[in-house]
Amino acid sequence: MEPDLSRLADAIDDRGADGYLFDGHDDSDQTYVCGFDAPDPFIALYDGAGAHLLVSGLEYGRAVSESRADSISRLDEYHYQERAAEDGPRAARLATIAAFLADHDVESVLVPERFPTGTADGLREHGLDISVEREGVITEIRSVKTDEEIEHVRRAQRANEAAMARAEELIEGATVEDGQLVHDGDVLTSERVKEAIEIELLRRGCALDETIVACGANGADPHDRGSGPLEADEAIVIDIFPRDKETGYHADMTRTFVRGTASDELRERYEITHEAHQAALDAVEAGATGADVHDAVCDVYEEAGYATLRDDPSTEIGFIHGTGHGIGLDVHELPRLNPTGGELQAGQIITIEPGLYDPEVGGIRIEDLVVVTENGYENLTEYPKELTM
Amino acid sequence: MEPDLSRLADAIDDRGADGYLFDGHDDSDQTYVCGFDAPDPFIALYDGAGAHLLVSGLEYGRAVSESRADSISRLDEYHYQERAAEDGPRAARLATIAAFLADHDVESVLVPERFPTGTADGLREHGLDISVEREGVITEIRSVKTDEEIEHVRRAQRANEAAMARAEELIEGATVEDGQLVHDGDVLTSERVKEAIEIELLRRGCALDETIVACGANGADPHDRGSGPLEADEAIVIDIFPRDKETGYHADMTRTFVRGTASDELRERYEITHEAHQAALDAVEAGATGADVHDAVCDVYEEAGYATLRDDPSTEIGFIHGTGHGIGLDVHELPRLNPTGGELQAGQIITIEPGLYDPEVGGIRIEDLVVVTENGYENLTEYPKELTM
Repeated sequence: MEPDLSRLADAIDDRGADGYLFDGHDDSDQTYVCGFDAPDPFIALYDGAGAHLLVSGLEYGRAVSESRADSISRLDEYHYQERAAEDGPRAARLATIAAFLADHDVESVLVPERFPTGTADGLREHGLDISVEREGVITEIRSVKTDEEIEHVRRAQRANEAAMARAEELIEGATVEDGQLVHDGDVLTSERVKEAIEIELLRRGCALDETIVACGANGADPHDRGSGPLEADEAIVIDIFPRDKETGYHADMTRTFVRGTASDELRERYEITHEAHQAALDAVEAGATGADVHDAVCDVYEEAGYATLRDDPSTEIGFIHGTGHGIGLDVHELPRLNPTGGELQAGQIITIEPGLYDPEVGGIRIEDLVVVTENGYENLTEYPKELTM
Repeated sequence: MEPDLSRLADAIDDRGADGYLFDGHDDSDQTYVCGFDAPDPFIALYDGAGAHLLVSGLEYGRAVSESRADSISRLDEYHYQERAAEDGPRAARLATIAAFLADHDVESVLVPERFPTGTADGLREHGLDISVEREGVITEIRSVKTDEEIEHVRRAQRANEAAMARAEELIEGATVEDGQLVHDGDVLTSERVKEAIEIELLRRGCALDETIVACGANGADPHDRGSGPLEADEAIVIDIFPRDKETGYHADMTRTFVRGTASDELRERYEITHEAHQAALDAVEAGATGADVHDAVCDVYEEAGYATLRDDPSTEIGFIHGTGHGIGLDVHELPRLNPTGGELQAGQIITIEPGLYDPEVGGIRIEDLVVVTENGYENLTEYPKELTM
């Protein structure tokens, strides 16, 4: 995959700089520009034409085989070890970076907001001009996915669906005793279901930091990860957002289940959320705004008499979050599907996840993952939507 | 746990600053100072007497219940939303941080090397004096553990040993077919053993990014994570370094196994590594240096005729890494047990992990985790050391 970085080149030109410099790792913008990441901070320069890396000897071989960079230099090509023996590792690193930049005829660079101040101030002492790029142009560029990136997300979503199926299987296979779900003689808890989800994802090459399996009142707080016994006849919100370890791309999906009997109240909220979900999907196409899609959800909920933040910014029940977000190397990235969401572009991958929350009733959320197309969307989610089991 | 931050207070005084400022997350120094971490960057100020947090409304409740901070403020106490509506989120965040600092009578701060340049330059425009603290005083402070931290590492090590036992069980339970290990009818691979390790750790509340299960020539490269079929009569290096998800503390242990018959060459290398390991342990005590401990290992290896980096800095076989490292919130932290390692202090937790590498023979490494004491060490590792099974 060769991303189109022409807008980054333009941003560098517009600011009269010679390049864009990274000194980090585990940073999706940096990974995107050079097609490489490492366990420790490394230097990446984009000079308007291509990417150039400066890495330790330890990372050199992997950088050569994995990265998209046009050139890869080792610290020692700029005499890092000799400098370190003389002046200590910190001064040596700065002098090495300065020599690398001089070698690429770079005297002034844009850097990301979170570029380390120690490096910025140190390079300024070496006479370099460092200014922060505040518009997030790379984050904007990478919101539009190449076909290869779409395949990466699709693959992560297949693993995600296998994990959701595993969770559903556990809940469906439970018996009900005194209103609690029981599996293999033990009370079935959020923790137990999350463990099964994690193991399934692990088996499929995915990692995840967090999963939500939240029942009843827990599920009424969209940020609650859920804990404790799962109850019959209550809504159980399951939200899984794994990262494929090989590609680094994420998937994201939420389903809500009731084991036993859903009350009329829960059923009604599920139906209206399903309707809001479909209204949002119907609003998705290149040229529509994220705000339009969000409004479509608010329209459905408000017409049905539910509170939304659009209608009442102080409400703590009802539809109390945005409609969705972009996803890719980051689990949350551009575009935004909320009141500030700008124009959607073909190739963006977004979540559509309306929901209703009330501690007295529980939480309901339905989330799919779709690619924006010129005339609508392609849904990457194949998992069915069924409230009761 | 209340860490002793008096040396940080001294460093602030010495530099004539009013405090030490963080704007990050997932940063062990920041977590250590305020006893709190969050999924997104947040502001933490240490003013020489205590820690003060500035967090979003979303994180406020958890910060109140989990952190050790003396005060916790929400962004909105400093009118973040109104500022954002007027000037956009970036300018609003900077003005909010400036107001928070003014509220704490802070006009000049030290910041870590990796403090974001966007925030540093932005606060400078607000008239604040920002300078980088380059000595890493917090990293030094947290190398000495409190009793509570030692218990956290001990707990992670118990999970680690259960995972090692699981790996050993798989290898021991394999049959040998055409020189390859076979388990349940399938060739037993590094990947399969790593999966079993990860699942066991997950069940015990631990996370891990990487594990090493490296056989034969793979194991002769200390950075190779290992892949493919495991072979009989070859050395299999297993190095596991999990993080306890609840406490954030790590453990670390390596064992080397041969399934089948170990050659005399492998056996000899194992014995000498065991000897080097014991020599290192014997050298550990408060007041000895990390360099002393490393020298003890080099002495044993060199006397037995093996190459070391001390003897030959360009060797690619023999003992080709340091003897160990500190461990805690980071898997690699101070102190260093290598030629640059300074004086050890009671309460530091370190690994002792000598090893021998040669692509023709394979890799051997033995690693325990110990606490430095006034007169020696306490070994947190209970796992036996046996080459063959």
